[in-house]
Amino acid sequence: MSDADILETAASWLEEEELAYVRERVPTVYVEAIPVRANHLGEVEKVGLLLRPRPDGSVSRAIVSGRVLYGETVREALWRHLTKDLGPEADPLLPAEVAPFTIAEYFPTPERTGFSDIRQHAVSLVFIVPVTGECAPSQDALEFSWLTVEDATSPLVATEMSGGQDILIRRAMAHVGRLP
Amino acid sequence: MSDADILETAASWLEEEELAYVRERVPTVYVEAIPVRANHLGEVEKVGLLLRPRPDGSVSRAIVSGRVLYGETVREALWRHLTKDLGPEADPLLPAEVAPFTIAEYFPTPERTGFSDIRQHAVSLVFIVPVTGECAPSQDALEFSWLTVEDATSPLVATEMSGGQDILIRRAMAHVGRLP
Amino acid sequence: MSDADILETAASWLEEEELAYVRERVPTVYVEAIPVRANHLGEVEKVGLLLRPRPDGSVSRAIVSGRVLYGETVREALWRHLTKDLGPEADPLLPAEVAPFTIAEYFPTPERTGFSDIRQHAVSLVFIVPVTGECAPSQDALEFSWLTVEDATSPLVATEMSGGQDILIRRAMAHVGRLP
Amino acid sequence: MSDADILETAASWLEEEELAYVRERVPTVYVEAIPVRANHLGEVEKVGLLLRPRPDGSVSRAIVSGRVLYGETVREALWRHLTKDLGPEADPLLPAEVAPFTIAEYFPTPERTGFSDIRQHAVSLVFIVPVTGECAPSQDALEFSWLTVEDATSPLVATEMSGGQDILIRRAMAHVGRLP
Repeated sequence: MSDADILETAASWLEEEELAYVRERVPTVYVEAIPVRANHLGEVEKVGLLLRPRPDGSVSRAIVSGRVLYGETVREALWRHLTKDLGPEADPLLPAEVAPFTIAEYFPTPERTGFSDIRQHAVSLVFIVPVTGECAPSQDALEFSWLTVEDATSPLVATEMSGGQDILIRRAMAHVGRLP
Repeated sequence: MSDADILETAASWLEEEELAYVRERVPTVYVEAIPVRANHLGEVEKVGLLLRPRPDGSVSRAIVSGRVLYGETVREALWRHLTKDLGPEADPLLPAEVAPFTIAEYFPTPERTGFSDIRQHAVSLVFIVPVTGECAPSQDALEFSWLTVEDATSPLVATEMSGGQDILIRRAMAHVGRLP
Repeated sequence: MSDADILETAASWLEEEELAYVRERVPTVYVEAIPVRANHLGEVEKVGLLLRPRPDGSVSRAIVSGRVLYGETVREALWRHLTKDLGPEADPLLPAEVAPFTIAEYFPTPERTGFSDIRQHAVSLVFIVPVTGECAPSQDALEFSWLTVEDATSPLVATEMSGGQDILIRRAMAHVGRLP
Repeated sequence: MSDADILETAASWLEEEELAYVRERVPTVYVEAIPVRANHLGEVEKVGLLLRPRPDGSVSRAIVSGRVLYGETVREALWRHLTKDLGPEADPLLPAEVAPFTIAEYFPTPERTGFSDIRQHAVSLVFIVPVTGECAPSQDALEFSWLTVEDATSPLVATEMSGGQDILIRRAMAHVGRLP
C-alpha cells in the first residue's frame, strides 16, 4: 500500500461523525491553489477555475481547495488536491518557497474576514501554482476552464464564486503584478 | 465577559481528553512569533527568547508559540500568546501583511520536516514580530532575554532549543538579511 | 559633517545635466513607501497620502518616493525620504525584512508596465511602512492626509494619483488582506 | 532585428568609458538568479552554480548575475542572463510573483552589507529559479554544475564564491525550507 493509499484510508477512517465533532472544536487546516498559465517570462496570462453546474442552471466556480490530513505535509496535500481536481496530466509546478503567498480564514459567517464556510472554521494556506499540462478534472463532474486575467478578476466571475474565493483571485493577481 | 475571556473559557471547555482525541485525528493550527529588536532603519539587532530552567540545571529556550482556538483569528491568537508570554507592556508590532514569513510542520518525530512535537501534528504559521516595550513574562515561571543575532544563531543556543525552533531562528535571520 | 550631509552633498554634486545624462543610459534605483496606520492586531486601517495643489485647483496625491543615491543603502534612502516627506516626528517603522513587498518598473510611457515617469526608466522597490507618529510634511508645500482603506482604493482617489501609484496602493492592500 | 538584438546593441553603445562614468554616480540595477532543481512536490534538491577556472587552478563559483539595461524589464533581464549563462535548452521557470525573494546591495567594499563589487554600487534583485532543462553554458568558458543543498551551503563551497554570493545561497535555502 502506498503512502497515498494509507493516507486515503486514514482519511476515510475519520468518519463524517468524527469529522463533525472535530470541526466544532478546532480550526481545520486547508490548502488552496490558484492554477495559472504564465508565459516564458513568468507573466501570468490565464487563471484556471473549476466549475460545477448549479441546480438553477448557473455555474459555480472555484479554485483547488481541500483539507490537510493528519500525517500529511502541506506539499503532499497540495499535490493530492491538484492531481485530484486537475487530473493526472496537469503537471502543476509546486512552489519552491515554504510560505503561502496569503492565508484565508474561513468562519461560518463572512462578517469577520470576508471568507466563509458554513461547515467550519478553517485556516487556509493559499498558493499560486503554474500549471503547464493538460487539465482534465477527474471527479465530482467538475469541469475546468482557463480565463483571462481580466475575466477572472471581473465582477461577473466574482458573483459565480463563493465563500470569498474571488478575493483570493484578486490578491493573487496583485501578487503577480496583474491587478489593474 | 470580553471576547478574550469567552475564548479562554471555550479553550478550557476543550478538556484534555477531548484535545487528545482531536490531536490524533487532524493537524492542529499553531502560530509562532520570533520577537526582535530593530534599530530605526529596521535592521534586526536582537532576538528575544523565552527561557525555562530544566531539572538538570540547564535552560531551555523557546520562541512564542501556541494554538489557534476555534473561533479565533490568527492575529488574535498571535496577540494572545505574545501578551501572555511577554507581558502586557511588551508592545509587540504585529505584521501588516497577512502571510507568515515561513511555516513549520511539526510531526511526532523529526525525520520528515526537522520539526517535532511528540503530542501532535501541528501546522504553524511563523511571524517575525518587532517588540518595542518591556518584556516581563507573566506565567509558567518563564524568563525572557534578548540575544544578539550572533548568539541567537550560534550552535550553542541551538542546543538549548527544542523541536526544531532553532531552524526557525535561522530562517528568520535569513529573511531579515542577518544570517551570516 | 554627518553621513547624511555627505550624501546630500554628493547628491548635489550630481548636477541636473549629469543626472539627465545618466538617466538616458541606465535604469535609476528608486524606493517607495506606502505609509499605513494599523491597529494593535496589525490590521491596516488608514493609508497616508501626500497631496499637492495643482494649478487647476485639484489635488495630486502621491506616496513617498525618491532615488537611492550612490553610496546609500536602501534602508537609508527609505529613512531619508520618509523623514523628508512626513516630517521628523512621523516615527516610521521600517520593515525588518530585506525584500520589498512588490516592485514597480517606471518607463517614459505606461504601455509596458502600467507605471510611467516621463523623465526616466526607474526600478522601484516598494515597501509598506506603518507610521505611528505625527506627520508634518516638511517641504515642497506638501500636505499629508490619512484616508480610509476604502477611500484610498476608490476610483476617485485613483484619478488623483499619477504614474500608476494607485496600482501600488491596491497591491499593498491585497498584501495586507484589505483589498475587497 | 529582434528586441533582444536591439537591447544588446544598445548595451554595446554604452561604451566602457560611459559605463564607468555612470557607475561612479548612481547605483546600478542588477538581477541575480539562483538556479534550482526541485522534485514534484516543489522541494529543492539541487542548486546550480556556474564555475570558471582560476589562474591558480582552483575554481570560482557563481550564480547567474547581470545588469538590467535601459529600456529592459526585470523579467527580460532575468531571461536574457539565464539564457546566456545556462544555454538555450535550460528552460528556466521565471517566477510568477513580481517581488524578488531578497535583495543584495553590493558596495566596493564588503563592510557595510557583506556584499561587494569593486566596480560599483549595485542593487540586485535576487530570484530563485527552478530549471528543468539541460544546462549548457554558452560563453566565457563557463561550466555549470548541480550541487546538493548540503554541498551548496557548505563552508568549502562558500570559499569558492565571491562578493557574498554564498550568503544569497543560504538565504535562498532558508526561503525554501532547506537550510539546516
